[in-house]
Amino acid sequence: MSKAEYRIFGDQISGNCLKVKWTADLLNLDYEWIEMDILSGACRDPEFLKLNPAGQVPFIVLADGKTISQSNAIVVYLLKAEDSSLLPADAYEYAQMLQWMFWEQYTHEPAIAVRRFKKHYLKLPDTEIDPILLDKGYAALKIMEDHLTGSAYFVGADLSAADISLVAYTRLAHEGGYSLADFPRVKSWISKVENTLGINES
Amino acid sequence: MSKAEYRIFGDQISGNCLKVKWTADLLNLDYEWIEMDILSGACRDPEFLKLNPAGQVPFIVLADGKTISQSNAIVVYLLKAEDSSLLPADAYEYAQMLQWMFWEQYTHEPAIAVRRFKKHYLKLPDTEIDPILLDKGYAALKIMEDHLTGSAYFVGADLSAADISLVAYTRLAHEGGYSLADFPRVKSWISKVENTLGINES
Repeated sequence: MSKAEYRIFGDQISGNCLKVKWTADLLNLDYEWIEMDILSGACRDPEFLKLNPAGQVPFIVLADGKTISQSNAIVVYLLKAEDSSLLPADAYEYAQMLQWMFWEQYTHEPAIAVRRFKKHYLKLPDTEIDPILLDKGYAALKIMEDHLTGSAYFVGADLSAADISLVAYTRLAHEGGYSLADFPRVKSWISKVENTLGINES
Repeated sequence: MSKAEYRIFGDQISGNCLKVKWTADLLNLDYEWIEMDILSGACRDPEFLKLNPAGQVPFIVLADGKTISQSNAIVVYLLKAEDSSLLPADAYEYAQMLQWMFWEQYTHEPAIAVRRFKKHYLKLPDTEIDPILLDKGYAALKIMEDHLTGSAYFVGADLSAADISLVAYTRLAHEGGYSLADFPRVKSWISKVENTLGINES
């Protein structure tokens, strides 16, 4: 039986999991993808919990059995392992990359991804979704639009891990009920990043 | 007039800001601390917003005028600039450090720091604080306690940036109404990290 170098546990409805898949594909890694159906409770499976007590995906098992969780930490690890230029060599640009990745997890994802999950997957009516999520999501999109004035990507002149992180849920914002009509730079940045990553339109 | 190498904007009631201060002190950096009173709206000051449109602290201005936000990104930047051993040299340990720092911002801080702010600073009665914050905070403490079984620190055998990040609000959890009575390993880890960082008891 052939054995892949990495085993990646993820659910393809999750932008956080897709970040890891896109990175692995871009790097042509030898990996096995184990699809975990979040909605049907796959993450609470006792076998998975033995491997990963936190019960979250994405989750990666390295060839030596060591594991890493947290989407952005896994993306940075894989890019570094392959010496990819998507990790900026310049110390300041590297800090900017981390800054955007922490901002994505702290500010962007808890609004846009959470509203998308409630609306698109849990099928909650808008009246049952905290209205603050819409405001916070639009505020995050505004910060992105402003940043893209004069910048093609989030850090430096080229695609970096920050773009992979940020595009994951921004490209799915419409499923959360957000319109990108007032964010033309965000829209064209999404297309550019999707093309580079070879992502099909959802 | 002497000019410090770094200007750090922060509020010392904020654990996120203190992470940066402790790191700068540990590294003996030449910095000016600009105290920003969050509660009295210092972050909405037009002069500050010109410098930092996102209006958040901590925020650092480097000698060349470039800026970085997001506490954990600043901490990693400073440690790297000083070639500190608090950034693990081993690639897997470095990934573990980032994993814990992303977990801190995504899971730990939004429960424990948010409940502390509402209870200790906004003086809200418990009945006006979402009860989920208490559950989520205790779940985070449980994950930390379990991890510290057999480990003195969060990554490898020594203090790392992950400990600086995690200790910031864990040591103040009591102000959020959390008891550490059931988390003896967390308690002794807090004392150890406080001693190493030279932090006074609050």
